[in-house]
Amino acid sequence: MRAADVIAAKRDGGALSREEVAAFVRGVVDGSWPDYQVSALLMAIVWRGMTADETAWLTEAMVESGDTLDLSGLPGPFVDKHSTGGVGDKTSLVVAPLVAACGGMVPMMSGRGLGHTGGTLDKLEAIPGFRTALSVGDVRRTLEAVGCCIVAQTDRIAPADRRLYALRDVTATVESVPLISASIMSKKIAEGIGALVLDVKIGAGAFMKAVDRGRELAAAMVRIGARAGVRTEAALTAMDAPLGRAVGNALEVVEAVETLAGGGPADVRTLTVELAARMLVLAGLARDDAEAHRRVEAALGSGEALERFRRMVAEQGGDPRVAEDAARLPSAPCRTAVRASRAGFLARLDAGLVGRAAVALGAGRSKVGDAVDPAVGAVVRARPGERLAAGDAVVELHHRDDGRLDEARRLVEQAVTIGDEAPLVGPLVLERVA
Amino acid sequence: MRAADVIAAKRDGGALSREEVAAFVRGVVDGSWPDYQVSALLMAIVWRGMTADETAWLTEAMVESGDTLDLSGLPGPFVDKHSTGGVGDKTSLVVAPLVAACGGMVPMMSGRGLGHTGGTLDKLEAIPGFRTALSVGDVRRTLEAVGCCIVAQTDRIAPADRRLYALRDVTATVESVPLISASIMSKKIAEGIGALVLDVKIGAGAFMKAVDRGRELAAAMVRIGARAGVRTEAALTAMDAPLGRAVGNALEVVEAVETLAGGGPADVRTLTVELAARMLVLAGLARDDAEAHRRVEAALGSGEALERFRRMVAEQGGDPRVAEDAARLPSAPCRTAVRASRAGFLARLDAGLVGRAAVALGAGRSKVGDAVDPAVGAVVRARPGERLAAGDAVVELHHRDDGRLDEARRLVEQAVTIGDEAPLVGPLVLERVA
Repeated sequence: MRAADVIAAKRDGGALSREEVAAFVRGVVDGSWPDYQVSALLMAIVWRGMTADETAWLTEAMVESGDTLDLSGLPGPFVDKHSTGGVGDKTSLVVAPLVAACGGMVPMMSGRGLGHTGGTLDKLEAIPGFRTALSVGDVRRTLEAVGCCIVAQTDRIAPADRRLYALRDVTATVESVPLISASIMSKKIAEGIGALVLDVKIGAGAFMKAVDRGRELAAAMVRIGARAGVRTEAALTAMDAPLGRAVGNALEVVEAVETLAGGGPADVRTLTVELAARMLVLAGLARDDAEAHRRVEAALGSGEALERFRRMVAEQGGDPRVAEDAARLPSAPCRTAVRASRAGFLARLDAGLVGRAAVALGAGRSKVGDAVDPAVGAVVRARPGERLAAGDAVVELHHRDDGRLDEARRLVEQAVTIGDEAPLVGPLVLERVA
Repeated sequence: MRAADVIAAKRDGGALSREEVAAFVRGVVDGSWPDYQVSALLMAIVWRGMTADETAWLTEAMVESGDTLDLSGLPGPFVDKHSTGGVGDKTSLVVAPLVAACGGMVPMMSGRGLGHTGGTLDKLEAIPGFRTALSVGDVRRTLEAVGCCIVAQTDRIAPADRRLYALRDVTATVESVPLISASIMSKKIAEGIGALVLDVKIGAGAFMKAVDRGRELAAAMVRIGARAGVRTEAALTAMDAPLGRAVGNALEVVEAVETLAGGGPADVRTLTVELAARMLVLAGLARDDAEAHRRVEAALGSGEALERFRRMVAEQGGDPRVAEDAARLPSAPCRTAVRASRAGFLARLDAGLVGRAAVALGAGRSKVGDAVDPAVGAVVRARPGERLAAGDAVVELHHRDDGRLDEARRLVEQAVTIGDEAPLVGPLVLERVA
């Protein structure tokens, strides 16, 4: 089969066969499809979309392009959570040990941050000594000892996805529901899990700005999961303002620890409890939401969740004392508050702009390979809906004395909208897609 | 400006700016746009199209990517004709000397055949000694001496188009009106002409199967010509059956010579007279169609058109005696007729299939770089509408004894449809687009 014919079929709006999809993915991995043919097909897919069958075949071929995690001999049940990425989203750091404390096994493979959203691995690496590049043997040992781990994907997981993603990034072909869903799901299916909860973020700080598009993505991923034998469910959650108060790597670790200890900001606690509870239900560890919520709350209240986090950090080479002593984490030398220019209500705190401010300070990457500063970031001092006096701190920037403050301050000033009336603040969990 | 942003703008249906289009073409020529970004943008253009402005800027940038023919000091007026490609279309061989005989200067740069349609250069190279790779100096000398030449584009004419075309061919991005029209027009504008007549072929043997799509292409090219200061007009002409009787390189030279001598098949004569007459009008060499037709008919009747052909062949290194003696051209050793399987009317003779039969015999190329056999081809013995007895020859194949006959015969048999009633045979010239 000629690559040009496959491209032409998709260009003309046709559905590709399983063999054509498999040949494409094989061609991506072995290089027999040159980049220019791959990118032409990617753009045709952005244009024409893919059927549920095509998307499932694409995912399957990407999973089969590499290794899958060998979890044989471990008791399970294996369950994971994935978020499409938001600002201040430290839920993975809370949910993995929390579900482990409730009897699940969470072999979480995660990614690094790019653009305005942070990466779970970057956050954990703010912990002195923490290693994310674990061998399969180390992953198995950590799961057996703790019940969870949070590690980097190896090069052998879905290599087709890696080459495709690199190409999509530079050819404006990222934004396609079938391509996004196959990319995410191939990596999750390769973990060998039996259940998966997806957190699809919607809003100013998310990749998806509109709820209908998020619903479409969620439904596509749930379908792929079902086809691959993974019980999958998605929550659509609001990402208009940052989640919690902390944005930045070490700052978010501190907030995750507070949440694991039974405290933390209300929204972080609500979301982690909801996600962890659904993981328990899907994994068969709780009969229903009510039982799942009771177990999750108990694990937070008893200290067992925090204990699992401490042990996971230790198993992965990090300093477990960060669980008691935040001073063991890096911190920035300077603090500068962005203040309310007038009295009123905080009508809006744009998560995307706050995220970009954190990146500007060095907390994230503008491009792959950039170094990340674990110490810097932003702390939200006022949540949307709160009443402000002129001069009240809205966001506190944690920064170095390196001339990067000005851009960050400008972005946060843009992020803040003060109004005369109390704004309507919507719910955090918008919908469940199953 | 980042390539990915330009691609994204087109992906989202936006119009590119003149600077963006110019940066793209520059990137194509200097390699700063990698192939995978070029092909992604090409597919986005196939999807979203281009405005008249964008198409004009693309054409302009492609012209400026290379040299233009320096015709300074020659008297002109400079006028050319271009066909989108058909089966048995030898009109260029007739029209160039015919217009030269009427006082025009025709600096025709042409291409080679690919797929089922023949190339003008391949046809001329059937003439012993004929050279198509002329220097600019030789082009000027030939124009001065004869008033016309038919030569290959140099590598310095619209180099952006060459790289783009190579990529479009393997990424299923050929079929786009703005890309096709910019490709054709950039090469014609680079000839330095002031007037241009386009022959847009429609039908089974043409690239464009439907008249509305041909009309769209014609209108796009006419608009580009006007923007570039070239008086441009297009004729939409039928390409359901082969044009004339001869399909194949030397065979078509013979038929072109017959037409230049005042004979030839009626359809070849009709079309060449029509095209040449419009060239005279657009070039300001005749006031109206009536005067132009009189002058063209006179040049055919007087022998002056054939004399110009003879001199052009001689100037370009070929044997001018082919104008009197067809035996000086290569001919194939074997003839095999495909005959009517039953009595009736020839309802249809599919030009595309006849063209593919000629390619199967070696008259054309399946891929760039294939050698072409000047001697082989097909001669149409019965035109659509003619009454046939069972066993009458419909097409005579001229071939070598090399095992390639069977496929060609099969294709011609497919091309022939015999019906019980005389078919409606439509006009040759369908529309004029100006």
